[in-house]
Amino acid sequence: MDRRSFLKTSALGGSAAAATTLAAPAYAQGKRTLTMVTSWPRGFAVLDDAASYLEQFVGEMSDGQLTIEKKAPGELVGAFEVFDAVSSGQADMYHSADYYFIGQHPGYAYFTAVPFGGTAQEVTNWYEHGGGQELHDELGEIFNLKGLLAGNSGSQSGGWFRNEINSAADFNGLKFRMPGLGGKVLGKLGASVQNIPGGELYQALSSGALDGLEWVGPMADERAGFQEVAKVYYTAGFHEPGSALAANVNLDVWNDLTPQHQAILRHAAQATTYFQLAETLANNGAALARLQQQGVKTLQFSDDVWDAFGTASAEVMDENMGDELFAKIRGSFEESLATSASWINKSDGYYVQQRVRVLGG
Amino acid sequence: MDRRSFLKTSALGGSAAAATTLAAPAYAQGKRTLTMVTSWPRGFAVLDDAASYLEQFVGEMSDGQLTIEKKAPGELVGAFEVFDAVSSGQADMYHSADYYFIGQHPGYAYFTAVPFGGTAQEVTNWYEHGGGQELHDELGEIFNLKGLLAGNSGSQSGGWFRNEINSAADFNGLKFRMPGLGGKVLGKLGASVQNIPGGELYQALSSGALDGLEWVGPMADERAGFQEVAKVYYTAGFHEPGSALAANVNLDVWNDLTPQHQAILRHAAQATTYFQLAETLANNGAALARLQQQGVKTLQFSDDVWDAFGTASAEVMDENMGDELFAKIRGSFEESLATSASWINKSDGYYVQQRVRVLGG
Repeated sequence: MDRRSFLKTSALGGSAAAATTLAAPAYAQGKRTLTMVTSWPRGFAVLDDAASYLEQFVGEMSDGQLTIEKKAPGELVGAFEVFDAVSSGQADMYHSADYYFIGQHPGYAYFTAVPFGGTAQEVTNWYEHGGGQELHDELGEIFNLKGLLAGNSGSQSGGWFRNEINSAADFNGLKFRMPGLGGKVLGKLGASVQNIPGGELYQALSSGALDGLEWVGPMADERAGFQEVAKVYYTAGFHEPGSALAANVNLDVWNDLTPQHQAILRHAAQATTYFQLAETLANNGAALARLQQQGVKTLQFSDDVWDAFGTASAEVMDENMGDELFAKIRGSFEESLATSASWINKSDGYYVQQRVRVLGG
Repeated sequence: MDRRSFLKTSALGGSAAAATTLAAPAYAQGKRTLTMVTSWPRGFAVLDDAASYLEQFVGEMSDGQLTIEKKAPGELVGAFEVFDAVSSGQADMYHSADYYFIGQHPGYAYFTAVPFGGTAQEVTNWYEHGGGQELHDELGEIFNLKGLLAGNSGSQSGGWFRNEINSAADFNGLKFRMPGLGGKVLGKLGASVQNIPGGELYQALSSGALDGLEWVGPMADERAGFQEVAKVYYTAGFHEPGSALAANVNLDVWNDLTPQHQAILRHAAQATTYFQLAETLANNGAALARLQQQGVKTLQFSDDVWDAFGTASAEVMDENMGDELFAKIRGSFEESLATSASWINKSDGYYVQQRVRVLGG
């Protein structure tokens, strides 16, 4: 589907067009408050942390002239309704993961994570210096959104299971939660894949509605309590090697901001990714150790299972190539990833191997 | 040497004390300009880039109410005189690499990089969420400095050589440029180690004053032109696995800023690290390919050489343990690094190994 036909057929295209005719929001004493709907319950580690840092940094740097009012799911709209709410102008901005919105456009997968994609650093290299930001905006224009990233989970865990995965066949018939293109990959392996908002996952796993799930990583997963229900935890996964979090703004609202406030939002978003990612990666190790103390068994998928992930991932990516904009985004991303990795593997990667060999650990 | 005896014996301790009695800088129409002396010639890739982004982001976010006026080496003081200039109040802030100042205090090594230390991400984890920032300030108080980091080079190259390094003995007698504790490690291997400002390195290598040098990485090294003089390039090194750049501010100047302007400086510095590091890592791969096209041979040191680096590094680190504050900083850093790495090796690290295995590259 190309952009033109997408716009014609999409209900969102219609609401986006309508949104451009909305009146500009009222100003109060020169101060501006942006309503930010999120997909995260309050206090959800990593994700709500990122949303909170964005809120904090913007307020501090604008001396309270620009403030963000954060709304958890259910306070204004549901967890997965944030995209439509901001596209239509019902809310000013959202904090979420854009791969929840691959139904709106499959290209949104790249603004969170794709199977066998980039680490957090590689995604950032592309977004800020490889054309990613511009493509986020190009995609956003269809839906009347300004693209911003604010936060990153780092490489996500392979997930929680009741039983060990000994071959790719073990995914057959498994009721598993995984959003984005990763979920479509597990679907190829026969899993019954569901996307369920984070706030409802513990209950779904407890009740048996799910056999397993992936959420984020040790810090976030421990807070969510999955260790109480499942005991097998795979630490690496193919599906989200560095998931970016999005803070997209209604384009009319964005265009109505002063250049100073636009700069504050943009750099606050960058500082949020820097600061929250570091917090997550500084805490995951200790969280993992606590999970192990609670009887959780940590494993890695076998090479055979990784090979099956690879084959199915290639199929899923290729299925979307009929969409012109998806193909353009994919091409840009893969070119950037190849050049990033060509250096990182020879420097950071080789260094860490030697550090482990020389010092242990 | 403890902090108290250090203050008594250091000339800088004296000038720092004197600086607290200086009059506050004059304000002009509510606007504030900070003079920032740097160790980088204008246009030096990576390093001057970081200083320039900091200048830009602060100006944008304050709407010109807080501006940074950048001074290259020689415009106000020399490349390695920036620390004393800011400590004494001659300049408001500096942009440099704090390991140039291990003569002032060996603990400053940790605010750039130490041998077998952390990658850029691991250093950030420690600095922002493992006590590093607070220790930077504790060290800074001795010299009347507020600690800020703004920029990171990523993992630095092993360096430029005229001939291949086939064993650790090849370092014996080699005239080599390497600052910080890494330079002391090469000294243990018999190298004649010198620290020379970046702007003078090309000439030193050309003239034979140096047999070899390490500078930053492909993007910065190519710009400096070292490939015209030496043809052997080691892509990974033990000495600077993720070098932070410092943007320390005179403490009186810092305390005189409004909370809003302090927040803008702090978050602009964070956004600078995020943005400049990504630029560097997005460009190093293509720069490396161009270097190879110009006849540069890229190599990795052998395991035996890495083992020799490891043994000598442990000796150098231990030699500084008589200093109480050095020991405190080292303990904090190593604790954070161990917990960061315990997760990253099992997630990002394992993922990248599998990506290379499954997809190639």
